[in-house]
Amino acid sequence: MNIEALRSYLHTHIPLAAAMQVEVLQASPEFIALSAPLAPNINHRGTAFGGSIATLATLAGWSLLRVRLDEFKPLPHLVIQRSSINYLRPINDSFTAQVAYPPETDWDEFLLRLHEKGKARLPLSIEVRTGEQLAARMEGVFVALKV
Amino acid sequence: MNIEALRSYLHTHIPLAAAMQVEVLQASPEFIALSAPLAPNINHRGTAFGGSIATLATLAGWSLLRVRLDEFKPLPHLVIQRSSINYLRPINDSFTAQVAYPPETDWDEFLLRLHEKGKARLPLSIEVRTGEQLAARMEGVFVALKV
Repeated sequence: MNIEALRSYLHTHIPLAAAMQVEVLQASPEFIALSAPLAPNINHRGTAFGGSIATLATLAGWSLLRVRLDEFKPLPHLVIQRSSINYLRPINDSFTAQVAYPPETDWDEFLLRLHEKGKARLPLSIEVRTGEQLAARMEGVFVALKV
Repeated sequence: MNIEALRSYLHTHIPLAAAMQVEVLQASPEFIALSAPLAPNINHRGTAFGGSIATLATLAGWSLLRVRLDEFKPLPHLVIQRSSINYLRPINDSFTAQVAYPPETDWDEFLLRLHEKGKARLPLSIEVRTGEQLAARMEGVFVALKV
């Protein structure tokens, strides 16, 4: 699932992603970067709305699992189970959410759990940046459910 | 700030609230209830998107502080500092986010801190329901900053 396929998937299936004008900057099984412009995501103070920031981070984490499992047939249900987010500074411009596959996580073990238990969890740490600055950090737990 | 004023404020200043078609069901200094229909907040599985659920909860918490501080001049900046959310069950219909002012929190002390320190934090617990069922719970910390 490449950049254009992921963008199309998000915009088609999640109207909020379209409303936020989410773009896909990078999409691989190792790394996802999404971006959103300020205008559709602004708040009453003229900075990025917290809901938009958390949503972009959620989409990034979800996308990493989606891309990693792209060849798993049938595609498991992928959902977010819980998340925590810290808002570190106001965002005055477009912003990105980035997530890397955690190298310490054993993917074969994840797939084995998914096969055997029908369910596997992947904790991910997602960074939201504006320019070079870290603006928010989300810790999320994403779940794949065998269908 | 009554129901119509809060609805207008959210839709005017936060485009994502308009895109989500957020409605205000109740608005008082003691209790806020917001709702959102499923269609603009749907995900790839036909249930409510986690980002929309977290955003509605965030708007509810923010609104409680906004309504409580409506007569505080000048109006402080109100922001979310951090939050944690647990997604408990899928949502197949419209959903609400509800938050009550915590009776154990001393409001006079909050106002005193805001006056003296220029900053005061309010932790809030927000419930997201669909019909009668609890579907998600957010713990959020909202901050008022004197301007």
